[in-house]
Amino acid sequence: MIYLTRRERFNAAHRMYREEWSDEKNYEVFGKCSNPNWHGHNYELFVTVRGEPDPHTGLLINLKEVSRILREYVIDRLDHKNINLEVDFMQGKIASTENLAMAIWDVLEPHFKSLGVALHTIQIKESENNIVEYQKNQ
Amino acid sequence: MIYLTRRERFNAAHRMYREEWSDEKNYEVFGKCSNPNWHGHNYELFVTVRGEPDPHTGLLINLKEVSRILREYVIDRLDHKNINLEVDFMQGKIASTENLAMAIWDVLEPHFKSLGVALHTIQIKESENNIVEYQKNQ
Amino acid sequence: MIYLTRRERFNAAHRMYREEWSDEKNYEVFGKCSNPNWHGHNYELFVTVRGEPDPHTGLLINLKEVSRILREYVIDRLDHKNINLEVDFMQGKIASTENLAMAIWDVLEPHFKSLGVALHTIQIKESENNIVEYQKNQ
Amino acid sequence: MIYLTRRERFNAAHRMYREEWSDEKNYEVFGKCSNPNWHGHNYELFVTVRGEPDPHTGLLINLKEVSRILREYVIDRLDHKNINLEVDFMQGKIASTENLAMAIWDVLEPHFKSLGVALHTIQIKESENNIVEYQKNQ
Amino acid sequence: MIYLTRRERFNAAHRMYREEWSDEKNYEVFGKCSNPNWHGHNYELFVTVRGEPDPHTGLLINLKEVSRILREYVIDRLDHKNINLEVDFMQGKIASTENLAMAIWDVLEPHFKSLGVALHTIQIKESENNIVEYQKNQ
Amino acid sequence: MIYLTRRERFNAAHRMYREEWSDEKNYEVFGKCSNPNWHGHNYELFVTVRGEPDPHTGLLINLKEVSRILREYVIDRLDHKNINLEVDFMQGKIASTENLAMAIWDVLEPHFKSLGVALHTIQIKESENNIVEYQKNQ
Repeated sequence: MIYLTRRERFNAAHRMYREEWSDEKNYEVFGKCSNPNWHGHNYELFVTVRGEPDPHTGLLINLKEVSRILREYVIDRLDHKNINLEVDFMQGKIASTENLAMAIWDVLEPHFKSLGVALHTIQIKESENNIVEYQKNQ
Repeated sequence: MIYLTRRERFNAAHRMYREEWSDEKNYEVFGKCSNPNWHGHNYELFVTVRGEPDPHTGLLINLKEVSRILREYVIDRLDHKNINLEVDFMQGKIASTENLAMAIWDVLEPHFKSLGVALHTIQIKESENNIVEYQKNQ
Repeated sequence: MIYLTRRERFNAAHRMYREEWSDEKNYEVFGKCSNPNWHGHNYELFVTVRGEPDPHTGLLINLKEVSRILREYVIDRLDHKNINLEVDFMQGKIASTENLAMAIWDVLEPHFKSLGVALHTIQIKESENNIVEYQKNQ
Repeated sequence: MIYLTRRERFNAAHRMYREEWSDEKNYEVFGKCSNPNWHGHNYELFVTVRGEPDPHTGLLINLKEVSRILREYVIDRLDHKNINLEVDFMQGKIASTENLAMAIWDVLEPHFKSLGVALHTIQIKESENNIVEYQKNQ
Repeated sequence: MIYLTRRERFNAAHRMYREEWSDEKNYEVFGKCSNPNWHGHNYELFVTVRGEPDPHTGLLINLKEVSRILREYVIDRLDHKNINLEVDFMQGKIASTENLAMAIWDVLEPHFKSLGVALHTIQIKESENNIVEYQKNQ
Repeated sequence: MIYLTRRERFNAAHRMYREEWSDEKNYEVFGKCSNPNWHGHNYELFVTVRGEPDPHTGLLINLKEVSRILREYVIDRLDHKNINLEVDFMQGKIASTENLAMAIWDVLEPHFKSLGVALHTIQIKESENNIVEYQKNQ
């Protein structure tokens, strides 16, 4: 089995909070990440797909295809955006890295399926110390 | 001459815009960095001081002192903040990395001077591709 | 399934050797890593836990909790220490990265279990070229 | 179970193309990677083996052994070489990173087996954005 | 004084050799870098310009402008190319990183001058261990 | 002017302390870095030389020469050693990164001078957050 990983980056603002909680309650749970004036990150996104390489090309999938899908469906909707306010696939969700990884999975899976490869993991590096990875039961 | 560099990190939101300009004009000049809903970065700050090491300790300056100064006067005021709205030393300034580096110089210089070392450069890495460095004429 | 990884760092001295062997025998097996005067590393520790995010917070586990556990039970006992002489959970063991990863697993597992998440892997990067990962059969 | 990863690096030239296709067809499929005048990369190779540490040494396998095997059978045959023209284990194959990872697996597996550890994954980082990993069904 | 650095990357093939020397003589001087079948690198290019920020924008220079210039005049001519055979501004020169840095300086200088900023340094990282930097006397 | 930087790495143990001070006084000044049982680091050494490239080779200096000098006179004497106890050129000096950088300068300068290039800076990265650089008045 071959696994191919493509890294893309986006810079975004977010805030960790639950709307029905007071600012105090949000601060108690989320600490400084709940700042009502937002903060932000340089997010690194690692998308891994798996399958068997095409014997005619030696490639699992054309990287230009991967890059185009990631750019069109994920990066262009997240980069230089406010994750809480502007990203449609995150509406109604807490803007945690965990939720972001799960939402990106759901956005990307059909596009890779239609190209004949399986989505394997969505990994997001929020900072050099904090990394979240998601694999949906399949 | 010995140069000692300490790296610290902060995550913040910002927006590039000039208040007296329309959103359209701001977008024309600053592109997606002018997004009114903010975006953000993992900033890396490299502060370099220079001087002669103390012959009794072999140290130019105690790193715990450097770290304490950076934390108290810079990082605690920037980390998980909105640079445009919440950072006092950036008020009335466009929240560019250039202006941020110059403002941090002015904040830090007296503290290092009082410890007997000269501030040499303020470097801010906004992303892996964009780096700004400032040296004040002295 | 969500996997969350937290990186922490520690700087320590160690020596690879087996007490009942002569210095020559130790050198034969461990090479320069057996130097009786010690050597050291900047170790990077990556601790991965897994589980389902809490639907109320969107978080698998509070990162401040993870960081506190790692600091209290692992980093404070290893950082700026001699692994052979001073680290209680390494006594009677050869100070290899393999043994260190297994020992850290045993130290951390109950603390994460009591927080409702499963420990998934302990990874230690001893240098940019050498990485050890441990997963206990569960 | 312990997993040990060793990183090695090599710099090589290659070209993505299929001999029976015209230059136009190759360009259509492989883009600028099909340049007939070659291009190249700083490849990073991560080889992971797995097993139980030897209780007498605390080591899964001696890293000097790992490094010697990688150097003799892989790095010396790839470094500063043209993958299409000069690397015997890539003859008759398209010089994709996928094929390279699979070929390196076949080269290395018997050497690690004879040392009593199992080869776990071959990972190749062709650039900071593109990573291929291979695990053979066993 | 503000210094702004932009990083760009390109992957290229090259060979170190002097045409009037035999292959043996080239090997004697340049070692495996003289391989007649080429080898290659992931080059990282760091271009630093200096000046005073524009008080209306807080910017030394618009990064999109920097990126456009680098892409048009340097990256598009080097990426996925053979430096010896295909890069016009390297014709008649030995394809060393030193010569490459000097040639890129001469290509870029007029473009930055016409934008009102001074070119400060051209730095090329050929590998994680080898870095060349050029500053032309001005 | 061309500047060429070569990176090398070494892993060593050290302790910050002044012999004529008590352990308490040493702890007061140097904190946990004064641990009598030692600690250690993965040091990264960046040596920069400067000059004009040789027009016959396009090289400032042969990198194999640089690497041989660094290995023979610096790395082999520091790697897997105790800086306080075993490194002759650090005897009688406090094992600070500042002193180490200055001592390495004095060790290396004559070797580069005899090759016709000037030593420009010695930089040591003790950790990802702490960097020391030395330039001797010349």
